[in-house]
Amino acid sequence: MRSMASSASNRGIAAIVGVGPKLGRSIARKFAHEGYTVAILARDLGRLSRFADEIAREEKAQVFAIRIDCSDSRSVREAFEGVLSLGFVEVLVYNAYHPVSWHPTNFTDIRIDSFEKSLAVSSVGAFHCAQQVLPGMVERGRGTILFSGCSASLNGIAGYSELCCGKFALRALSQCLATEFQPLGVHVAHVIIDGVVGPPRGGTSSTSSQMRTMTSVGEQVQVSGAGGDVDRFMDPDALAQTYWQLHLQDRTAWTQEIDLRSSTPTRFF
Amino acid sequence: MRSMASSASNRGIAAIVGVGPKLGRSIARKFAHEGYTVAILARDLGRLSRFADEIAREEKAQVFAIRIDCSDSRSVREAFEGVLSLGFVEVLVYNAYHPVSWHPTNFTDIRIDSFEKSLAVSSVGAFHCAQQVLPGMVERGRGTILFSGCSASLNGIAGYSELCCGKFALRALSQCLATEFQPLGVHVAHVIIDGVVGPPRGGTSSTSSQMRTMTSVGEQVQVSGAGGDVDRFMDPDALAQTYWQLHLQDRTAWTQEIDLRSSTPTRFF
Amino acid sequence: MRSMASSASNRGIAAIVGVGPKLGRSIARKFAHEGYTVAILARDLGRLSRFADEIAREEKAQVFAIRIDCSDSRSVREAFEGVLSLGFVEVLVYNAYHPVSWHPTNFTDIRIDSFEKSLAVSSVGAFHCAQQVLPGMVERGRGTILFSGCSASLNGIAGYSELCCGKFALRALSQCLATEFQPLGVHVAHVIIDGVVGPPRGGTSSTSSQMRTMTSVGEQVQVSGAGGDVDRFMDPDALAQTYWQLHLQDRTAWTQEIDLRSSTPTRFF
Amino acid sequence: MRSMASSASNRGIAAIVGVGPKLGRSIARKFAHEGYTVAILARDLGRLSRFADEIAREEKAQVFAIRIDCSDSRSVREAFEGVLSLGFVEVLVYNAYHPVSWHPTNFTDIRIDSFEKSLAVSSVGAFHCAQQVLPGMVERGRGTILFSGCSASLNGIAGYSELCCGKFALRALSQCLATEFQPLGVHVAHVIIDGVVGPPRGGTSSTSSQMRTMTSVGEQVQVSGAGGDVDRFMDPDALAQTYWQLHLQDRTAWTQEIDLRSSTPTRFF
Repeated sequence: MRSMASSASNRGIAAIVGVGPKLGRSIARKFAHEGYTVAILARDLGRLSRFADEIAREEKAQVFAIRIDCSDSRSVREAFEGVLSLGFVEVLVYNAYHPVSWHPTNFTDIRIDSFEKSLAVSSVGAFHCAQQVLPGMVERGRGTILFSGCSASLNGIAGYSELCCGKFALRALSQCLATEFQPLGVHVAHVIIDGVVGPPRGGTSSTSSQMRTMTSVGEQVQVSGAGGDVDRFMDPDALAQTYWQLHLQDRTAWTQEIDLRSSTPTRFF
Repeated sequence: MRSMASSASNRGIAAIVGVGPKLGRSIARKFAHEGYTVAILARDLGRLSRFADEIAREEKAQVFAIRIDCSDSRSVREAFEGVLSLGFVEVLVYNAYHPVSWHPTNFTDIRIDSFEKSLAVSSVGAFHCAQQVLPGMVERGRGTILFSGCSASLNGIAGYSELCCGKFALRALSQCLATEFQPLGVHVAHVIIDGVVGPPRGGTSSTSSQMRTMTSVGEQVQVSGAGGDVDRFMDPDALAQTYWQLHLQDRTAWTQEIDLRSSTPTRFF
Repeated sequence: MRSMASSASNRGIAAIVGVGPKLGRSIARKFAHEGYTVAILARDLGRLSRFADEIAREEKAQVFAIRIDCSDSRSVREAFEGVLSLGFVEVLVYNAYHPVSWHPTNFTDIRIDSFEKSLAVSSVGAFHCAQQVLPGMVERGRGTILFSGCSASLNGIAGYSELCCGKFALRALSQCLATEFQPLGVHVAHVIIDGVVGPPRGGTSSTSSQMRTMTSVGEQVQVSGAGGDVDRFMDPDALAQTYWQLHLQDRTAWTQEIDLRSSTPTRFF
Repeated sequence: MRSMASSASNRGIAAIVGVGPKLGRSIARKFAHEGYTVAILARDLGRLSRFADEIAREEKAQVFAIRIDCSDSRSVREAFEGVLSLGFVEVLVYNAYHPVSWHPTNFTDIRIDSFEKSLAVSSVGAFHCAQQVLPGMVERGRGTILFSGCSASLNGIAGYSELCCGKFALRALSQCLATEFQPLGVHVAHVIIDGVVGPPRGGTSSTSSQMRTMTSVGEQVQVSGAGGDVDRFMDPDALAQTYWQLHLQDRTAWTQEIDLRSSTPTRFF
């Protein structure tokens, strides 16, 4: 999709915050595949380093693993000192959430520090990461910030107040930043992932699966048409494809919000 | 509207959190007028005590002023020990917000501790107050929790990320609590106040103004029909009337969300 | 709630369009009870006349039954010639829908004339009725128009495209009229009734049941607190109470949209 | 983006309904460019034929111009007899609207037949076109239906009830069809175009401009970064790119709704 003529020097850094084995990893791989230097950030540095090695090797790209605890503002600041030292951060994907928040809990049993931590990861962390990269984006008049939401971003759900409050707040942040920074050249979008993300269907080598999502429609449908079950989980490589396309959008036709779900969805709630 | 025959012993406490000279005071006065023992809570205990005296005198009701700092969980707990010692808290109105958040700020100039504090007041405080009163409501199978939102609860606005993130999160909380607790008999509603609240139009003696909102429609319109300007600001006594009606709703016909605005609105944003 | 001093001459006509045995009848009875001359309109004139007689007798009010077919613009015009001849139409409640649209149908089996008829009743009829009464309301600078929606007003549902398209369009109409006419003194609100309306719980004599919704909260809860099943259906008298309160709202605090559902809801979909 | 290896025989027909000089033409050209046989439909057959010739010549594709009046069900049926005779309709884009509805009108001045016609074009026409193509899509277990909305799909606007009612209804239709047909393999999406579409920025030869939207981000921004004014209008080729990408989405990651707007928007309202 990118012109072969574009020199790498035009490219900045893509920073992906919240990288686990599914969506974050696929997004990182996609941007690496398209020629970006990628910084991946998460709490578990050991696992993160393995992802970085794997992506660097398979995509022949520069990938940096940097530890971050999004609930700790000092950790965010230090992590982004590292990211910003790599060059201009052209893309920020914020994909972090507080794991505990995916389990339903009686409201009166939720501990206040757990609630605070969930907000800290879902929205304060996003706020803080955005603050690190926006001055550089505004200076150059370009950049892309993509926030990952879910169905809990749109509707409150019994037993999920930790998740919902954080995700509603993140959506608010996305809208505020869009209205403030889009006229300055920074594209801000909120991606609602409505369903359960599974493993990439292409297997461990995601290059091939990524290629598959970019192949002809007729062919692709023949592959997936048979399997009912295989469609119940969202393919993270297919999701990453949409993140990439959002980044590429022309500035006269920017998306602020998009939803994504399977044709035969499985849901958490 | 209430039956004269209802004995005071059926009534619990109405706790109004976030009481300033406009909306909070009018809501407190309305519930006092209708026969409730009222606890009013805010940070400025001196002003709060003057409101309590005024309402107690004018409405011949019991009104308690209790200091609270909604951004401080210890303060919330201590304040509600006081409230709960008064009796069954049948009504909770959460009306608090972080004052600084009403001024627009360049996103990159917002300090992270200010952002955190805004979330703490708008949503963590609401979470914590709700936790204090819900066990009693569930035990009795009745109760009403009303959250005050605004247009920033629905749309992100450039320069207002502190306000919007907190208010989106509060709306999420309201929806989560409604889905979890309405089947248990607790009515949870979110009131979107879309505009600028002015002083009560009835003057300092709100009894008369409150009566005015309850008078016949034809008469009322003759009073306000002339003045364009007088309608630009929302009358807090009129708003309080809607809070009261939400509390009275039959349990087969409960509102989860309602908006309120002037016929000729003035807006902050 | 209304002042006893208000003379009947201040009152206009309340026109209720779409009156069956549940919601429409309860709304008509409520406005009659509060002193309005009421015009009730529906297709089945025989049944309508019995409702009119019953309400007139029980509420000691003037009630007129007028036949209307909301899908037929000539019928709407003729019906409102009748309504307008009674005096100033101060209140319009639009409650009509195409009955067939409540049954799920495979999309490809829906006949185009059925789809057109559903739109004609849900939205063209509402458009046309509003046009009949708005000039008089604008001239006097006051009036209330209330549209009845449902959960199909907010979300598309498999098998219900007839209902959803009409109800989405009706919601659009409500918003357009609110933005255009509220500054001119006409209150326009959209009421989302999210659930199944049952018979009035007060029995055939709705006066008593209406009184019950207006009694003290403590007492009311004792009555309904026991019965799970009785709360699954919405009490039309309780709904009518909210329609009435919307009409009474002060013009600095008007609702544009409100939802209503049971604490333990039963849904069609 | 499409694999060169995909044979034309896998491809069906792309039918674009509502083709004027901007968005419809760009979408038709994009699908032609990607190897589809394209049917373009609109009322003005003369203009349509010129577009068909131009696209066929420039994209070396088969393009058929077929007259349709979306407000007339017989015309829709006849037009689609023509379209379906070309082969399997794999893609339907519904882009038609009633031109008069883009001018603000006092509500009481809108003629009922104009209101009906607006609904007929915006939603009945869409309903009818979808009915023509869905049986074939369901039979093959694949297909894409894309509906064009605008900001009037989301909010009622004073003076625009004709437009808003039709566009709200169209959005309802889109949601109903998605819930019913996505499990059967048909992707249904609603595209909210929030702003004024201008001419393609690439000039008359849209091949080059289309290429430009697919070029590297860095380069693209240098081109458009200077001009404030040039970004006020949406580039129809950039919009068409998103329609194309929606069609290509993997069936585990389908979008139901997406918005598109300029970084520095111009709006009608």
